[in-house]
Amino acid sequence: MNLNVGIIGATGYTGYELVQILHRHPQAQLAWATSESSAGKSLGDLYPTPDDIPLLRQEDAPLHLADVIFLCLPHVASMDAVAQVRAAGVRAIDLSADFRLPSAAVYERWYGHTHTRPELLDEAVYGLCEVNRSQIKQAHLIGNPGCYPTTVNLGLWPLARAGVLRHRIIADSKSGVSGAGRALKLASHFVEVNENFSPYSIGYSHRHIAEMELVLGPWVPGLQVTFSPHLLPVNRGILSTLYVEVDPALSEKDVRSLYAGAYAGEPFIHLLPPGQVATLRHTVGSNRCAIGLTPLPYPGQWIITVSEDNLIKGASGQAVQNMNLMFGLDETAGLV
Amino acid sequence: MNLNVGIIGATGYTGYELVQILHRHPQAQLAWATSESSAGKSLGDLYPTPDDIPLLRQEDAPLHLADVIFLCLPHVASMDAVAQVRAAGVRAIDLSADFRLPSAAVYERWYGHTHTRPELLDEAVYGLCEVNRSQIKQAHLIGNPGCYPTTVNLGLWPLARAGVLRHRIIADSKSGVSGAGRALKLASHFVEVNENFSPYSIGYSHRHIAEMELVLGPWVPGLQVTFSPHLLPVNRGILSTLYVEVDPALSEKDVRSLYAGAYAGEPFIHLLPPGQVATLRHTVGSNRCAIGLTPLPYPGQWIITVSEDNLIKGASGQAVQNMNLMFGLDETAGLV
Amino acid sequence: MNLNVGIIGATGYTGYELVQILHRHPQAQLAWATSESSAGKSLGDLYPTPDDIPLLRQEDAPLHLADVIFLCLPHVASMDAVAQVRAAGVRAIDLSADFRLPSAAVYERWYGHTHTRPELLDEAVYGLCEVNRSQIKQAHLIGNPGCYPTTVNLGLWPLARAGVLRHRIIADSKSGVSGAGRALKLASHFVEVNENFSPYSIGYSHRHIAEMELVLGPWVPGLQVTFSPHLLPVNRGILSTLYVEVDPALSEKDVRSLYAGAYAGEPFIHLLPPGQVATLRHTVGSNRCAIGLTPLPYPGQWIITVSEDNLIKGASGQAVQNMNLMFGLDETAGLV
Amino acid sequence: MNLNVGIIGATGYTGYELVQILHRHPQAQLAWATSESSAGKSLGDLYPTPDDIPLLRQEDAPLHLADVIFLCLPHVASMDAVAQVRAAGVRAIDLSADFRLPSAAVYERWYGHTHTRPELLDEAVYGLCEVNRSQIKQAHLIGNPGCYPTTVNLGLWPLARAGVLRHRIIADSKSGVSGAGRALKLASHFVEVNENFSPYSIGYSHRHIAEMELVLGPWVPGLQVTFSPHLLPVNRGILSTLYVEVDPALSEKDVRSLYAGAYAGEPFIHLLPPGQVATLRHTVGSNRCAIGLTPLPYPGQWIITVSEDNLIKGASGQAVQNMNLMFGLDETAGLV
Repeated sequence: MNLNVGIIGATGYTGYELVQILHRHPQAQLAWATSESSAGKSLGDLYPTPDDIPLLRQEDAPLHLADVIFLCLPHVASMDAVAQVRAAGVRAIDLSADFRLPSAAVYERWYGHTHTRPELLDEAVYGLCEVNRSQIKQAHLIGNPGCYPTTVNLGLWPLARAGVLRHRIIADSKSGVSGAGRALKLASHFVEVNENFSPYSIGYSHRHIAEMELVLGPWVPGLQVTFSPHLLPVNRGILSTLYVEVDPALSEKDVRSLYAGAYAGEPFIHLLPPGQVATLRHTVGSNRCAIGLTPLPYPGQWIITVSEDNLIKGASGQAVQNMNLMFGLDETAGLV
Repeated sequence: MNLNVGIIGATGYTGYELVQILHRHPQAQLAWATSESSAGKSLGDLYPTPDDIPLLRQEDAPLHLADVIFLCLPHVASMDAVAQVRAAGVRAIDLSADFRLPSAAVYERWYGHTHTRPELLDEAVYGLCEVNRSQIKQAHLIGNPGCYPTTVNLGLWPLARAGVLRHRIIADSKSGVSGAGRALKLASHFVEVNENFSPYSIGYSHRHIAEMELVLGPWVPGLQVTFSPHLLPVNRGILSTLYVEVDPALSEKDVRSLYAGAYAGEPFIHLLPPGQVATLRHTVGSNRCAIGLTPLPYPGQWIITVSEDNLIKGASGQAVQNMNLMFGLDETAGLV
Repeated sequence: MNLNVGIIGATGYTGYELVQILHRHPQAQLAWATSESSAGKSLGDLYPTPDDIPLLRQEDAPLHLADVIFLCLPHVASMDAVAQVRAAGVRAIDLSADFRLPSAAVYERWYGHTHTRPELLDEAVYGLCEVNRSQIKQAHLIGNPGCYPTTVNLGLWPLARAGVLRHRIIADSKSGVSGAGRALKLASHFVEVNENFSPYSIGYSHRHIAEMELVLGPWVPGLQVTFSPHLLPVNRGILSTLYVEVDPALSEKDVRSLYAGAYAGEPFIHLLPPGQVATLRHTVGSNRCAIGLTPLPYPGQWIITVSEDNLIKGASGQAVQNMNLMFGLDETAGLV
Repeated sequence: MNLNVGIIGATGYTGYELVQILHRHPQAQLAWATSESSAGKSLGDLYPTPDDIPLLRQEDAPLHLADVIFLCLPHVASMDAVAQVRAAGVRAIDLSADFRLPSAAVYERWYGHTHTRPELLDEAVYGLCEVNRSQIKQAHLIGNPGCYPTTVNLGLWPLARAGVLRHRIIADSKSGVSGAGRALKLASHFVEVNENFSPYSIGYSHRHIAEMELVLGPWVPGLQVTFSPHLLPVNRGILSTLYVEVDPALSEKDVRSLYAGAYAGEPFIHLLPPGQVATLRHTVGSNRCAIGLTPLPYPGQWIITVSEDNLIKGASGQAVQNMNLMFGLDETAGLV
C-alpha cells in the first residue's frame, strides 16, 4: 500500500516536521500541502531544505487526491477544515485541540470558544496510540494528542488503569521553544529565552490539563491535577517530572511490573531500568517516550520522569503513528 | 574602612566570581589569592581578564595580611584550611559545605566523611543573611550557604517561621551548569548538556537537603523534603518551583503579608506582585532572590517560584554580603 | 558633579542597558525615560527588574531637566528628536546611525533616506572615544558608533593611522542576537537561531561599512572593505576576524609597537599578548575591546581578532564613555 | 546484498553516529563494536539509547565476521588497527587522519609522528566522494576526509579543477563542539563554550590544511591557504566562509555554471540559488553539503559559503557514503 497524504498548514513547525517524516516514510508520500500565510510560495522559500513543494491555498487543496489528510492549523480554525475533509470522505488526523476532548462543553470550558462541529466529536478518537490502539485502527477522524499531556498520560497510565494512583498529581513540565510555534512573540525571541528559564500558566490554568483529566480521570476518583509548564532554552523536547502517590501496599517491584505489563511490546516506550531517570537526550529526534521510575523513601510516593520530542511523539510523529495504525501499516514505518 | 581580602582557591567559578565582585567593591580589595592547581601562574592565564593577580600556593598565603579570607575549596579540603585561618586570628568565610551544618554527626551522615574540626562548628554561623543577620554581624567564621538551599530556604522561610507550613515539601529545582564547577566531567561537557535537560540525584539523596532541614526543620514538625535537582543548559541561575501546603485558614492576602513582613526592607529580596512568577532573568547577574507566590485552587496549596544567580546570591555574592555584615559596611556594597 | 540624564527610547536593548549602567554610575542618575511603544507603563512591566521607572511619551519628556539626553531610537526617527534636544540646549548622544556619517549624501547613499537635519551633521562628532577623544570632550552632539564598526575600526586604527595598512580588508564578523534588537522578526526567533549559524548581508552591502570607510578611509588610499556579518546563537558579543595586509617591511615587533603606542593608557583596550586571540569571553559584560594580533607566514599578512560586548562597548557603554568625556568625569565612571 | 559491519571505537561521537546511521540502513547491520574505554559495558550504558550492543575489547573483535570495518580511533592509534583489518582481508574505512595523506613525509610534517604503516598509504583512497568516486568504488582502504577540509574542498573544487582559482584562499570556518570529540577538556566544558565564541589554531597551523592542499594544490599553483577555525556554541555543524579570487574574465553566470557542471546529479550537494547563503540549518542532521555563491563588487572576488553536519557529511555519513560506493549499493542508502 502506498498512501497519498495531504497536509493542511504545512509551514508551522508541526507541519514541516510531518513533511520530513513523510519524506522518509516507505509507504506514504506527500501529495500536496497548503499554507495560509505562504500560498503561492514553495516550502524551500521558508525552510532551508532542498525538498521543495508548492504551497497551495487551503481552498484549492485537492482533498480527494489524498488517502489521509493531516491538519496543522490553530485551534478553532481546524473545526471547519476537518468538517470539509470528512465531508469529502477522506480520513483526517487533526493536530489541533479541536477534536481531542469528548464534548463541546468540556472544549468550551477550557478553550473559551463554542465548538461549531460538535457532531464530529462523536466520530473523533483521541489518538494516544498506546492507550487507544484498537479504536484508532477503526477511526476516520483522530484528535492527535497535545504535547504535554502525552508525557503525563503515558507516564501515569499504568498506575491509573490499575487503580492504584492516588488523586493528587503534580506535573512539573519543561518544554523546548518549538512547542510555542513559529509565530512571532516576545516569549519566543532568542534573547528573551536563551540563558533564561521561566514557569508560565502554572497552577490549574493550562488547557492541556483537560487531556490529562480525559485520560486519567475515569480511573482516578477526585483527580486533582497541578500542572506547571516551564519554558526551556532548547529547540525540542519535553521533560515532565511527576510527583505522585500510589497505594503504599505496592512494592517497588509491583510498581515496575505494572509498567512492564502495560507497555509490553510497545515499540516507542523506553522503560528505563532502576536508578535511571529520563532526560531529553533519551528521546529528542525519535518517536520514543522514555519513562523512569524513582521511589521516594516515603511510603507510596514516587517520582516519574518522562521525556519525549514535543514535535515527534508529542505531535507529528504520533500523528504518523496514528496514520500507520489506521491503514494497517507497520506501526513504526517512517518513525525512529 | 578598607578591607584587605584573601582568597584561598581563586580559580574555580566561585573564586573567580569573588575576584570580580571585589574588583567593584568600594571598601575592599584583593590582597592575595591562592590556587592549588595553578600556583605560579596568574589569573589572566586561566581567565580572559586583564585584571591579573599572581596565584600563590596555599601554604605561602600571607594569612595575616588579610582582614578576612574567603575559602573556595572542595568540601573536606576546607576543614584544615579554615582551622589555619582561624588560628591566625583572621575571620573566615567558607564557601564549602564543611561549616554549614550544626554537628559533626549531621555532616558525616550527608557527606560521608568524618569532620576533623568539630570544635569549629560551634563558632560557625550559617550565613543565610536574611535569616541570621544578627548572628552574622558577630561572627568570625561563616559557613556560606549552598546554592540550592538558598532558594528553598528563602522561598519558604516566611511560611515556616510563622508556623503555617505543612510538613511535605516538594522542591523541583533547575540549575545552570556553573553550579557543577569547573572540574572536567562528562556531565559538564558541552555536547552532553546543550539541547538536553536532565534530572539527577532526585528523591531524598542530594546533600543540600541537609541545609533545608537545618533552616526549616525547627519550624516544621515532621518535615519531609522531596528535592529534585535538574541540570539546565544555561551558564548561571537556579529556579526552584516549590509545591507546598499551608494552613488552609490563611487567605491569599494573609500569605502575602507573611512574605511582606518577613522581607520588609530586605535589599536583595524581590517579592513579585500577584500573578508574576520568578524567572532566571529576574536575578542572573545580581545578588537578588526573586520570589513569586501562586495560589492553587485547592485549599492551602501553593506554588512558590524562587530564582537566584547560583554564583552570586547562591555563593560569592552572598559571601560578600556576609563580609559586609561582619565588618559593619553597607550590606549592599559591591553588590547589585 | 551629578548629572541628570534623560533617555528617549528606554525599552529596547540599548535603552535598557543604559538604564542598568546609569544605575551603577556614581555621578549620574536617570531623571526620566520615554518609550514610544510602552508610554504609561513602567520599566518593570517590560523587564524583570525591581528598579522601576515610569515611561513617558516622547512629547512629554522634560528635556530641560536633563544635563544630557541619550537617544535610542531607530534611524530616521532620531533626526527630529535630536533636533528638539539640541534646540532645547541640551547635549545629545544619539545611538542611531543618523548622526554618525559626515554628510547627508553619504547617509542617503547607505540608508536610502533623505537626511532632514543636515545642518546638525556639522555639529555632530563621531563618538569613537579612543580615536576622537579631544573632539568628544568639546562636543554637544555625539553620533555614537555602530557595533560592528567599533570592532573593525579599533582593530585596524593603529595600522591605518601609521599608513601601513594595505587597501584590501576582509572583516568576517559574528554577532550575538541582541544586536538585531528586541523587535519581533523570524530571524530572531529562538528556534531559528539556536543551533544555527548564518551569514547575512555579506559582501559590500551592510550599512556599517560606511563607518569603516569614515574612520579608515582617510588613511588608506583605495580602501576596499569586504564585510561579512554572521548571526551567532548567543545573546551578546561581537567577534571580528580581520584579514589584512601591512607593509611587509614591518617586523612582528614593529606591528605590535604600533598597537602599544596607539593604545597606551587606554582603559578599555585589552591588547592581548603574542599567541593569544580575542574571544567573546574577553569582553562580554564589560566596556572593553580585546585585540589579538596573529601574523601569518606570508609576508605582511595578519589576522587581527577583535571582540566587544555589542550592547556595551558597541552601544550603551561607549555612549556613557562619551558622556564621561563630554562632562569631564573619570572616563571609566560607571563602566567596568 | 546485506553487509555485516564492524566498528572499532564505537563510543566517541563519530562511532555513535555510525551506529545510528547503520540502524536505519536498509542493507547493512552492525555485527559488532569495540570500545577501548568501555569494553565489557554496553552502548546503552554510555548513551541514552534503547538500542543496546555489547562493547568488545579491540583484540577480541571478530574481524572476519565483517564485510567492512569502520575505525573511529584517534590518529596514530589507527595505524596498526587498520593494518590488522587489512591483513584479515577485510575492507576498512578509517575515520582518523592516518590514511588521508599521500605520503609518510607529509603526514609526519603535519602530525609530528612517524607513519609506521607507510606501505598502506598507497592502497588508501581519500574518500571525498564527489571528487574521487571512481577510485572509491575500487578501494579496499578509505581515508575518510576530515570535517573542515570537506567544506573547503567541496566549496572550491569546481573552481580549482577548472583552473580559475587564484592562489590565495582564506577559509574562515566555524564548527560545533562535537568536532572536538567526547574527551574531557576545558575547551569543551559547557560554561567555557556557551555564550562564547573563540578562534583557535588560526593562521597556517591547523592540521586540516594538509587535506586542503592535497585536494586543491594540484590544481592551484602556489596555493596559499589561510585557515581560521572558530568554536561555535552549537552541538553540530560547520560553516566555512571562503574568500577567494577567480579569473576576473568569468561572469557570475560562468562561475555558477562551473558549480552546476561539477555537481550535476550529486545527491548530497545542495547548490543554493543566487542571493542565498549557506547556514547550518541547511545541512545539520543530513549528509548534505550546502554551497552558496556570492560575488563581490570587486572583479574576480567571491565569497563562497559552505555548510555541513560535521558528524555526518564531515565524518560518519560520508563514511557510509563511501561504504555504499565500495559495495555497489545505492549511494544514498541509509542517508538523508
